Amino acid sequence: MWKKLGNRKKSVVSEKKKEVLESLGKLGLKIYSQLNNGHFPSIQMPSRSTENIYYNPEVRQFILGDKRVRRSARNIRHIRPFTQLVWTALFSSELTSQRKTSTLRDVYYSAQAYEMKFKDQQESNNIITDLETVLGLSREDFSIFPEERSAVFGDLTIEYTVPGYEGRTLNLTSHPDGVMIGPALTSSEFVETTADKVIAIEKGGLFTRFVEENVHKKFNAILVLTAGQAPRATRHFIRRLNKELELPAFIFTDGDPWGMHIAMVVISGSANAAHLRDLTTPDAKWSGVWASDIVNYKLPTDPLEDVDIKRLHELKRDPRYKNKLWQREIKTFLDIRRKAEQEAFSRYGLTYIVDEYLPAKLEETS
Amino acid sequence: MWKKLGNRKKSVVSEKKKEVLESLGKLGLKIYSQLNNGHFPSIQMPSRSTENIYYNPEVRQFILGDKRVRRSARNIRHIRPFTQLVWTALFSSELTSQRKTSTLRDVYYSAQAYEMKFKDQQESNNIITDLETVLGLSREDFSIFPEERSAVFGDLTIEYTVPGYEGRTLNLTSHPDGVMIGPALTSSEFVETTADKVIAIEKGGLFTRFVEENVHKKFNAILVLTAGQAPRATRHFIRRLNKELELPAFIFTDGDPWGMHIAMVVISGSANAAHLRDLTTPDAKWSGVWASDIVNYKLPTDPLEDVDIKRLHELKRDPRYKNKLWQREIKTFLDIRRKAEQEAFSRYGLTYIVDEYLPAKLEETS
Repeated sequence: MWKKLGNRKKSVVSEKKKEVLESLGKLGLKIYSQLNNGHFPSIQMPSRSTENIYYNPEVRQFILGDKRVRRSARNIRHIRPFTQLVWTALFSSELTSQRKTSTLRDVYYSAQAYEMKFKDQQESNNIITDLETVLGLSREDFSIFPEERSAVFGDLTIEYTVPGYEGRTLNLTSHPDGVMIGPALTSSEFVETTADKVIAIEKGGLFTRFVEENVHKKFNAILVLTAGQAPRATRHFIRRLNKELELPAFIFTDGDPWGMHIAMVVISGSANAAHLRDLTTPDAKWSGVWASDIVNYKLPTDPLEDVDIKRLHELKRDPRYKNKLWQREIKTFLDIRRKAEQEAFSRYGLTYIVDEYLPAKLEETS
Repeated sequence: MWKKLGNRKKSVVSEKKKEVLESLGKLGLKIYSQLNNGHFPSIQMPSRSTENIYYNPEVRQFILGDKRVRRSARNIRHIRPFTQLVWTALFSSELTSQRKTSTLRDVYYSAQAYEMKFKDQQESNNIITDLETVLGLSREDFSIFPEERSAVFGDLTIEYTVPGYEGRTLNLTSHPDGVMIGPALTSSEFVETTADKVIAIEKGGLFTRFVEENVHKKFNAILVLTAGQAPRATRHFIRRLNKELELPAFIFTDGDPWGMHIAMVVISGSANAAHLRDLTTPDAKWSGVWASDIVNYKLPTDPLEDVDIKRLHELKRDPRYKNKLWQREIKTFLDIRRKAEQEAFSRYGLTYIVDEYLPAKLEETS
């Protein structure tokens, strides 16, 4: 099955970029017209304080409630963060329209080129999150990217939109070590694919094993390496594969509370990102390694440590973990008091995980 | 200048693979013939104990001295590590001839498929290092790779040797987020390049900036991201660029003792790898951020912490740091008591580092 994506789908990224520049422009115009009318400029945004963060079972992620905060240049204590926010919007607009990218750290230092002051990087990070909240867009949309890079491999052809590469395409099987998910890949359009699913994997060694064993062909899959906790750009990328290409997504992690939570953050996001919408894949499935897999497959294990057990009790109360599967697996972990790594399947030979475990679990969680 | 590499150069990797399989075969034959002659089999190798590790100024790295250890099946205390070593050699030979790859962790679990026991992963890691020492080859040579991945970008065409990709080529400018340095890239042959230097960079954000600002074109450079401390595969890759292509290498890190040491490990390796030869690039230059750059460029800084100062005093006594430049920079750090990150140049605008700092430092360290 060769799926060629229509033109409607192809313009997702350029539409987004237009939206970003329009939002930034609107914000600037609003401030300008307030000033023009002789008013102190002010900005309103949803509050991100803990008591305004709720889990919403319908959208299956944390969201912000109705409380709003107002920053006004009239208030002497607001002048500093207000000015910082406006500068950050200016800088983001410059980055985006010049098609350059930056990082959180870089924004902090760049401020000095404009004689804008931040006490420390924490302060500038906070203001960038404020701008996300005001615009309802994530910082990657306005060209501020994380340092971390994960990877993807599989039959998907993308078309670049970054300067110097516009219109050039790349098939994501072209490099068997995996294609890095950085600003260029994140901002590319999807052109065509034969894949019918996405398989996300926590560990680099296993990702390479899957490529070597042709999992992408045998299972018609696009393979995504999360490299531990998935960077936000990678979570957004998995969401795009799921929404734009309508591919179901399956997530394989270590069999411990930290692996579980890597899957959960891909699925339902984090409380820190309650002000954002485009980072979650609520229909993605955690396919393993479950606590019950540890039992059923008689895997080599390590004992749970105190910190693991404490974490399991936290997850048990977490609204994202409410459904039956998660509760059952948390309970099983607490019963067996053991954990196992993905590589543990190698006890049955290097390809057992691909030949036996993977097809069984894909079927079980489909 | 378009440099097409001759056939002599092109077979570097396949020669290496032949050497690895021959070495493993020879080891097996030796043990077999000892058994055949009615002797308890034994293996000799250089000792890796601290008192047998010396810095050698000629090869400009740590090396092992003349002390040797002997593992004999006659000695009851040796039987376990001897058997583990032989199994590891068998497993490595299987991996290499089947052209699969593995990781340290995977080897640990795989042992169980052969009813071979390791107490913990530390024990199996040690045995893998024993095998490196016996063969004088690094574990990547016999198909055991690290999890971490860094990246490369620039005009170099490589030819894959991994199964399914044999003979296929890739130009390393084909993905602007950088091409991952994993098993497939590491085992590829170099075909052609127009580059005349290598620039290694510590941080992902800056690597992306360099790509966006066309540093590879403006400076005819192959850009390598070390992503913090360079993984061994990346150190080996930089060495190959330097030795096979005869490209000078320049390393840019943060301006602090940890950044310095990232450069030093690329240049002169570590004491842990004293039994290996192919991981260093002794002619590579640390081009910045120097302590004196912090002064000359008036960079935004943070104070050195106690742990930084302690580290500087250690480096001061380290034989790898003996030459004038390193000693001068250590002294300057201790005088100014400040450190600076690579991104600090953004205080002069996003492209200052590329337009001003980079050309000045390349000239200074050429």
